[in-house]
Amino acid sequence: PQHHEKPDYLQNFLKEIHADNIKQHLRKFTRLPHLAGTQQNLRLAKQIRDEWLAYGLDSAELVWYDVLLSYPNGSRPNYISIVDQHGDEVFNSSLSEPVPEGYEHVTDIVPPYSAFSSQGQPEGDLVYVNYGRTEDFFKLEREMGINCTGKIVIARYGKIFRGNKVKNAMLAGAKGIVMYSDPADYCAEGVEPYPAGWNLPGGGAQRGNVLNLNGAGDPLTPGYPAKEYTYRSSLEEGVGLPKIPVHPIGYHDALHLLKNMGGASPPAGWTGALNVSYRIGPGFTNDFHKVRMNIHTYNEVTRIYNVIGKIRGAQEPDRYIILGGHRDAWVFGGIDPVSGAAVVHETARAAGKQMQKGWRPRRTVIFASWDAEEFGLLGSTEWAEDNAKMLQERAVAYINADSAIEGMYTLRVDCTPSLHTVVYDITKQVMSPEKGEERMTLYESWHKRDNWTNDRDAPRISKLGSGSDFEAYFIRLGITSGRARYTKNRKTELYSSYPVYHSVYETFELVERFYDPSFRRLEAVGRVRAGLVFRLADDLIIPLDCNEYAQSLAQYSHTIEQLAMKHPQEMQMYSVKFDALFSAVQNFTDAAAGFHHRLKALDTTDALAVRMVNDQLMYLERAFIDPLGLPGRPFYRHVIFAPSSHNKYAGESFPGVYDALFDIENAVDPHSAWDEVKRQISIAAFTVNSAANTLHPVA
Amino acid sequence: PQHHEKPDYLQNFLKEIHADNIKQHLRKFTRLPHLAGTQQNLRLAKQIRDEWLAYGLDSAELVWYDVLLSYPNGSRPNYISIVDQHGDEVFNSSLSEPVPEGYEHVTDIVPPYSAFSSQGQPEGDLVYVNYGRTEDFFKLEREMGINCTGKIVIARYGKIFRGNKVKNAMLAGAKGIVMYSDPADYCAEGVEPYPAGWNLPGGGAQRGNVLNLNGAGDPLTPGYPAKEYTYRSSLEEGVGLPKIPVHPIGYHDALHLLKNMGGASPPAGWTGALNVSYRIGPGFTNDFHKVRMNIHTYNEVTRIYNVIGKIRGAQEPDRYIILGGHRDAWVFGGIDPVSGAAVVHETARAAGKQMQKGWRPRRTVIFASWDAEEFGLLGSTEWAEDNAKMLQERAVAYINADSAIEGMYTLRVDCTPSLHTVVYDITKQVMSPEKGEERMTLYESWHKRDNWTNDRDAPRISKLGSGSDFEAYFIRLGITSGRARYTKNRKTELYSSYPVYHSVYETFELVERFYDPSFRRLEAVGRVRAGLVFRLADDLIIPLDCNEYAQSLAQYSHTIEQLAMKHPQEMQMYSVKFDALFSAVQNFTDAAAGFHHRLKALDTTDALAVRMVNDQLMYLERAFIDPLGLPGRPFYRHVIFAPSSHNKYAGESFPGVYDALFDIENAVDPHSAWDEVKRQISIAAFTVNSAANTLHPVA
Repeated sequence: PQHHEKPDYLQNFLKEIHADNIKQHLRKFTRLPHLAGTQQNLRLAKQIRDEWLAYGLDSAELVWYDVLLSYPNGSRPNYISIVDQHGDEVFNSSLSEPVPEGYEHVTDIVPPYSAFSSQGQPEGDLVYVNYGRTEDFFKLEREMGINCTGKIVIARYGKIFRGNKVKNAMLAGAKGIVMYSDPADYCAEGVEPYPAGWNLPGGGAQRGNVLNLNGAGDPLTPGYPAKEYTYRSSLEEGVGLPKIPVHPIGYHDALHLLKNMGGASPPAGWTGALNVSYRIGPGFTNDFHKVRMNIHTYNEVTRIYNVIGKIRGAQEPDRYIILGGHRDAWVFGGIDPVSGAAVVHETARAAGKQMQKGWRPRRTVIFASWDAEEFGLLGSTEWAEDNAKMLQERAVAYINADSAIEGMYTLRVDCTPSLHTVVYDITKQVMSPEKGEERMTLYESWHKRDNWTNDRDAPRISKLGSGSDFEAYFIRLGITSGRARYTKNRKTELYSSYPVYHSVYETFELVERFYDPSFRRLEAVGRVRAGLVFRLADDLIIPLDCNEYAQSLAQYSHTIEQLAMKHPQEMQMYSVKFDALFSAVQNFTDAAAGFHHRLKALDTTDALAVRMVNDQLMYLERAFIDPLGLPGRPFYRHVIFAPSSHNKYAGESFPGVYDALFDIENAVDPHSAWDEVKRQISIAAFTVNSAANTLHPVA
Repeated sequence: PQHHEKPDYLQNFLKEIHADNIKQHLRKFTRLPHLAGTQQNLRLAKQIRDEWLAYGLDSAELVWYDVLLSYPNGSRPNYISIVDQHGDEVFNSSLSEPVPEGYEHVTDIVPPYSAFSSQGQPEGDLVYVNYGRTEDFFKLEREMGINCTGKIVIARYGKIFRGNKVKNAMLAGAKGIVMYSDPADYCAEGVEPYPAGWNLPGGGAQRGNVLNLNGAGDPLTPGYPAKEYTYRSSLEEGVGLPKIPVHPIGYHDALHLLKNMGGASPPAGWTGALNVSYRIGPGFTNDFHKVRMNIHTYNEVTRIYNVIGKIRGAQEPDRYIILGGHRDAWVFGGIDPVSGAAVVHETARAAGKQMQKGWRPRRTVIFASWDAEEFGLLGSTEWAEDNAKMLQERAVAYINADSAIEGMYTLRVDCTPSLHTVVYDITKQVMSPEKGEERMTLYESWHKRDNWTNDRDAPRISKLGSGSDFEAYFIRLGITSGRARYTKNRKTELYSSYPVYHSVYETFELVERFYDPSFRRLEAVGRVRAGLVFRLADDLIIPLDCNEYAQSLAQYSHTIEQLAMKHPQEMQMYSVKFDALFSAVQNFTDAAAGFHHRLKALDTTDALAVRMVNDQLMYLERAFIDPLGLPGRPFYRHVIFAPSSHNKYAGESFPGVYDALFDIENAVDPHSAWDEVKRQISIAAFTVNSAANTLHPVA
């Protein structure tokens, strides 16, 4: 409604965001490695702070925390060996990736490693565990009779978060885990390895943390910000730290391990794209050869720095819209995160420019450059913990700004359902970045490439999953959240993530030469993110659509019932019904419709009346938070959405019910397992009813 | 500030509250027993609803929950026996209290019992455990070498909540516990037993629940409202249900048990006022005699009814001030709760009257008549669970209205520190109810009788403890809360509570003949409660004083440090310091001063600016809530205040630190026990800093 009165400000703001500037920001932020906890990343923080101030933000400051990080030992490299019967190393994996041209003299490139791996030099027979998923280990143990206890397992990257692979390996009794990038999962067909193309070279490997934090933030200070006076638990009690050595390798090295393997043939779906047989093991064809891991990575409490910039709201300074993304990178961060950070930077610049022309948003806008995302979303989570009370009371929305591009096909948006409508609106005001689509809006281009389903004729929007800094804001605090980036064609491009993800090959040139030579895709993504921030910060009525939430809840509730209906007999035996949930969703649907109906009649000149409906809109997402958290995951408190342990690229809906159903499969006592399903349905129904009540007239 | 502009409305409202009306309400609500879960209490709920509507409230309705209650078996009475060597009962305790004159034909008087006792007929040697406190059991076990395992213990009522006595007895291994009212604790000197005076007769006994809920509400649905679709845990998994039989008796019956006891002589402070030697046992002087408990009380899920009435706020309908007190009584409830419920009723009537004259409060006022308080604060807690989201977002304050009188001396106020100033203001606008003080304000009368301390020349205000319906609102949700009642002289009147507490002798006549013949004390209490509600609901700026909170925090932090300083060596050995907490309190003090300083310059014609500071005031108490709860007490989430397990009449401040220090005494591993102290200090410091931040300028 309101935004129609100020078309100039929004359009001027969007137009101010320029491809050329984004290119310059990307160039300047990717010259040197800027790993969390290093001097270079602190220097970058100061530079960003200074530039934000120069752009005209009202304030910008560094905010530090002392969190647990993890680094390779500089004098004792990590590697994987094949050892012979005398214990001599007959093969060693490489100690680093071949450095790309132009970066030969760069120091401080951290070699591929698994952050927070435990130290040790375990030796044993190797077992190939496919992706290391729950179902992969079940297949091994139950169908193939292969016991991983005391073994070293090798898993290919992909499908689930690497930390879950490590957890599954530990649960299976493994004493170490090697992870590698199989060409089947990290090479696109017909594409050359970098630098000739954008595929992963055989010498490249994927860095990454292997924690199981479940939203805790710093492993030593779960629930509280890691300040100077904060109590720290011992490493033994730290949250989510793996108890076994872990190491990542590339597919050239993996070939040497896999080609020697003996044992059973792989089941269907276990074969990658290397020219080997993918035998399962345990052990090599040469019985005397073993695998030895040599891991000397150490944990250290280290100071990290977020940059927090603010534009004070003109009318409602106590309402916050946050645009946050991380700054720390494994090496150069060409895609992850700088393609996103460059966009945040350009948004700050454009906002400053508009302010010079007299504009100031109705609400406060907070820009955040998070640190140590790669080590478990630490900077964003600590800041959320530090400011939890104010965020709960005052935060309208959080827009995430990690990597702005991961493919060359179309837009990808993951957000909470109440943002659907404003996302569509904004994408209709941004032009397509694709060649030959000069007269097409981004909405049309996106719609053409990725229509939702047969049911709905609109571009697909997905649920928020996991793996980036929105987690504490959305899943723990219940703040309306969304993210947008450019992506690949998920129907035809089946590799995981993007091929050079978390390798040294994520350079400026990777983006400039392959992903976005004109920088118009990043510009389009920047305009979507900035447009969302603008509308959320400046519309008189916060542009959230409760009816869309209702529709999504209806869908999710039927999906979860379908999942339960796989067990019709037990459903009947234990009287498991979803009626209470369906009834709650109906209540929510009615309440949402009533709310939007009344909204049409609102006297928008009545400042208090406007504030009241805005409060209802702001707190809608909060209503789905259960302070008791999900079972065993106290920091995942959103009853509708949680990251999935079973699928890296999706979020679960009704995760309490979903997990309870998942546990049915392995329940020792089915009666109590089904009881837990019933308990979770009851909690879901209560929560949805509660949320519905917040949309009713207030008195 | 604002209230000076409308002196008439406040004064008219206060004057509308009349002693005579309160007397009539008390009379009408105490004619028949109205135990929770009975038809009579439902009838009363409907009557209250109808009268509130007739008074002119905008709405009034019954809100039900299905909670676990507990009743004696109508055909198998509970009693305690002495049995001889043949198992024959040579003494039986009485099955009921002698009914007071005028009530002989009343049916449905529930006999004295311990609600939620487990069933059973344990037999064994008796041990006298004084008040059944932790320190009493320590003395028995550690100093006197008396093991309670397999014994039946007898404890006198008083000092701590009866549920904690039961818990302590279970921990000590007892297989049953008898509780009795010793004249030392339940008779005032020079006062006759009822009906000649207001002391407890020898045949009277104290009913009460013996749960250890720690704020969970309904034992079968902790954290969620007990609605039709709510999952209920089994009785075995229910929260806080005792695993042993429990029964209360009067001092006539207790005499028969105590006079026969053998064993050791009582330590100092263990002797009551009965004419017996108070020997400890185990067992009787006649070795062949044992005690047998006969308990057939049963648990049953039962429907209870709250009455919720509303006056919609004129300017800010989405801001709630709650005046709530319970309706259910063990028998007639002459004091507990009807002296309070009559005052709520009169407040609703007076408010309706003012509305007829054109007044409507700025904010919404909610009147609540809670059910099943006596069974563990169930009605109020279930409603808080049901409405948690809305209350968190919208509740300005909760004023509790349990018993309005427990003595004949002066006013007693327990409240959160930010209410101190408005409490003083209101009591200056109400006149003293005492004879001979016709020209004195209540403030002056109160001040004269109960000055705070040597440090401060003002009437004493205490911390909120436990044992009434404010608990879920204050301790779980962090809503500004307070209570006021008339009380005894705590310096000279050393008996617990009031003598006939929870007996059949709590009649209308008890109040009319002894406690408040003119009903002017109840009127004064009513005006204080109503005045608080009025000011909180109608002042332009919510009348909360952050500086008072700062001052209290400073006091509490020094008190808790003093407690720790009892262990100076360990403090040094484990580097336990309170500096972070002191520093946080200083931050809070500065923030509060700054906030009130800026408040003076506020443009009160700017509706949004006013709303913003009011939001800061409203959310101040919320800032002290930690969603993770206190260790082992997930529903006690207030970091500054919690009910004490060690003192029925006080709240703990910094309960996390307090409990950790308490545990030091019995720690097996002092290192980890002191670590927990440090962790708790860190959480306290963080929380106080967090609260300070909410008082800073908002952007």
